Amino acid sequence: MNQINNNYCVIMAGGIGSRFWPYSRESKPKQFLDFFGTGKSLLQMTIDRFRPIVPIENVFVVTNVSYKQHILEQVPDLKEGQILCEPARRNTAPCIAYATAHIRALCLQRAYGYTKEEQGYTKDGKLKGGSSESHLPNYTDIDWSKPEMQANIVVAASDHLILEEDKFRQTILKAFNFISKNKAIATLGMQPTRPETGYGYIQYLKGTKDEGIYPVKTFTEKPNLEMAKVFLESGDFLWNSGIFIWNLQTISEAFRYLLPEVADRFREGELLMGTDKEEAFIEQMFPKCPNISIDYGIMEKADNVFVIPSSFGWSDLGTWGSLYELSEKDQKGNVSLHSEAHFHEAKGNIVVLEHGKKAIVQGVDDMIIAEQDGALLVCKKAEEQRIKQWVENLSSPLPSKEE
Amino acid sequence: MNQINNNYCVIMAGGIGSRFWPYSRESKPKQFLDFFGTGKSLLQMTIDRFRPIVPIENVFVVTNVSYKQHILEQVPDLKEGQILCEPARRNTAPCIAYATAHIRALCLQRAYGYTKEEQGYTKDGKLKGGSSESHLPNYTDIDWSKPEMQANIVVAASDHLILEEDKFRQTILKAFNFISKNKAIATLGMQPTRPETGYGYIQYLKGTKDEGIYPVKTFTEKPNLEMAKVFLESGDFLWNSGIFIWNLQTISEAFRYLLPEVADRFREGELLMGTDKEEAFIEQMFPKCPNISIDYGIMEKADNVFVIPSSFGWSDLGTWGSLYELSEKDQKGNVSLHSEAHFHEAKGNIVVLEHGKKAIVQGVDDMIIAEQDGALLVCKKAEEQRIKQWVENLSSPLPSKEE
Repeated sequence: MNQINNNYCVIMAGGIGSRFWPYSRESKPKQFLDFFGTGKSLLQMTIDRFRPIVPIENVFVVTNVSYKQHILEQVPDLKEGQILCEPARRNTAPCIAYATAHIRALCLQRAYGYTKEEQGYTKDGKLKGGSSESHLPNYTDIDWSKPEMQANIVVAASDHLILEEDKFRQTILKAFNFISKNKAIATLGMQPTRPETGYGYIQYLKGTKDEGIYPVKTFTEKPNLEMAKVFLESGDFLWNSGIFIWNLQTISEAFRYLLPEVADRFREGELLMGTDKEEAFIEQMFPKCPNISIDYGIMEKADNVFVIPSSFGWSDLGTWGSLYELSEKDQKGNVSLHSEAHFHEAKGNIVVLEHGKKAIVQGVDDMIIAEQDGALLVCKKAEEQRIKQWVENLSSPLPSKEE
Repeated sequence: MNQINNNYCVIMAGGIGSRFWPYSRESKPKQFLDFFGTGKSLLQMTIDRFRPIVPIENVFVVTNVSYKQHILEQVPDLKEGQILCEPARRNTAPCIAYATAHIRALCLQRAYGYTKEEQGYTKDGKLKGGSSESHLPNYTDIDWSKPEMQANIVVAASDHLILEEDKFRQTILKAFNFISKNKAIATLGMQPTRPETGYGYIQYLKGTKDEGIYPVKTFTEKPNLEMAKVFLESGDFLWNSGIFIWNLQTISEAFRYLLPEVADRFREGELLMGTDKEEAFIEQMFPKCPNISIDYGIMEKADNVFVIPSSFGWSDLGTWGSLYELSEKDQKGNVSLHSEAHFHEAKGNIVVLEHGKKAIVQGVDDMIIAEQDGALLVCKKAEEQRIKQWVENLSSPLPSKEE
């Protein structure tokens, strides 16, 4: 069994949610919204989902500084030092490198030098850091066999939906067990149920190893419909969930060997991480990191990537369409969330208004109708990938009437 | 020339505006809204339109008591006694009978008995009434030749649009002149410009009398499209504007002879009208009046009805469609009022949101998209006559999901 104290969780919560405009806005993106009217935001659901298997003090949320307060309000038992603020948006690889460096520093503090009083956070939630940097070894001198260095880390998005949470946790524990014994990078691959073109796919090598954990052959980009159908039929492809499981040493080494352009930047401030100087260091260094995804930077290049085929009712909730698919429909296939919509000669629509609002919708099919905070969207579901662009155009200066 | 002090205006402002839901609501119907963003409500525009030809103290607004405060706020130079409150909705005939009885009482007070101090309103805007009822003659004894009894009255809706106001006033003055010399009921008939099925029509007898004022042959209900085309081509039909001009004696007699079931009810309290007992009398009597329109009760039955063919850019603004027709359109025929709408693959739509809101509208044609105070309407323009019914259904208890 895993030692529960060595389980860590990194939650990526920096998305600006432009695909769900106007329901989700840069000022309050998707992860902070109570999508299903359950009384919990997606972020709160995500964190609660990990509580039984990761102690709350080992949960780190990486986000933009402007969302820090939101998070502390929504999850009051997180300390301020557990919110890692990215000063710029640099995609998932620098985000994960940051969380990894932070966790590594905390583990080092426990393994070397720091007294128990020097570890962790002050009463007001800031990093203690302490004054014992000199006790800590250089990276190359780390003794990874020390029990404090045996951190199992799961990385997940803050805004995905998972319906069967017990099954999800069993899968994560299985992955923790695997990566604590093997120098492996693990990811969860969702059993596809439809030829979805909105997800990346993972091709895996069946049967070469059993226990339900298989080597990954390739990661693929989002396919077109024809390709997605081929993937689905082949049975060799899984949806890329963006949920990763590895131990601290494995991911630290992966960054050093596969993404030195990121790892080297963090190396410069290695001894500042986990101290009260971390924030200032990140502030000046992080924006210099290249914009690069973990998939491209690590997963596609590493030769020790394994996938666990899973099915626990997962959706990345990446689009209005995925929300539509997941939601309860009336007899005409209309969805109405948070509000009271009355449909006449209308089918296949999704209507999402501010809580308590009413709508009468007539004579439209397969549309997204969403209204929030002074903005309204009416568009065909099939065109939802263009929403992001339209919203960007909104913010641009409008052309004058004469043009 | 008319003696300007004898010109009176009755404005009907009791409509609940259900056809413009959700922009117009029972709590704040159409006549109180600034439809065109001019800074004036339709009611304010209506009253201002009459100011050059009717002294403000001779303007009476008939409405529901719940709108009284709205009106006093929007038109601060109206006194409280000039707002005639209907305790129930009884269509236009009782509404006009009430205004007529009120004006008649004020004229009688001036013509008989009341001292100047007893006439009109107290400082706080209430009817003075006075104590000299006994000076006033019975209805049958009124000397209509007294100058104070020579009231010219124009009756108009509070929520119509008129673009050429000078031309409108010239037409009203022409009608005043006509009805002050003839025992005639006059109405304005709009020169039709399209086979509109949303208006009633007036057929008139050309050339039998000139001066631009002609006897009316028939009033017709709203026609179907085929019939409307015949009306338009014939050249003998005008749109029924619902604007009436008559003098006090003529309309008083018309009610007595053609609508005794209404006139008799008012007769019972004849001597209470124009006094501080008027309100209590109306309160108990008015709900007993039959629900009947002035068109049906008087216009279609009287043999002294004349029409003045007119064209001064009139619309009854009865429907979203009429608002669409009147509004400035972009190259794709889209209208956006009060708000910033961005259209993609969309044509012929009208979008009316709360001031300052934004919308992205894609993939719909010829729709009404309106949002106000927590309610959204999305429906085909062609189905707008059903809005009223949908809104009524909204207020009814909702059927349970099982039904």
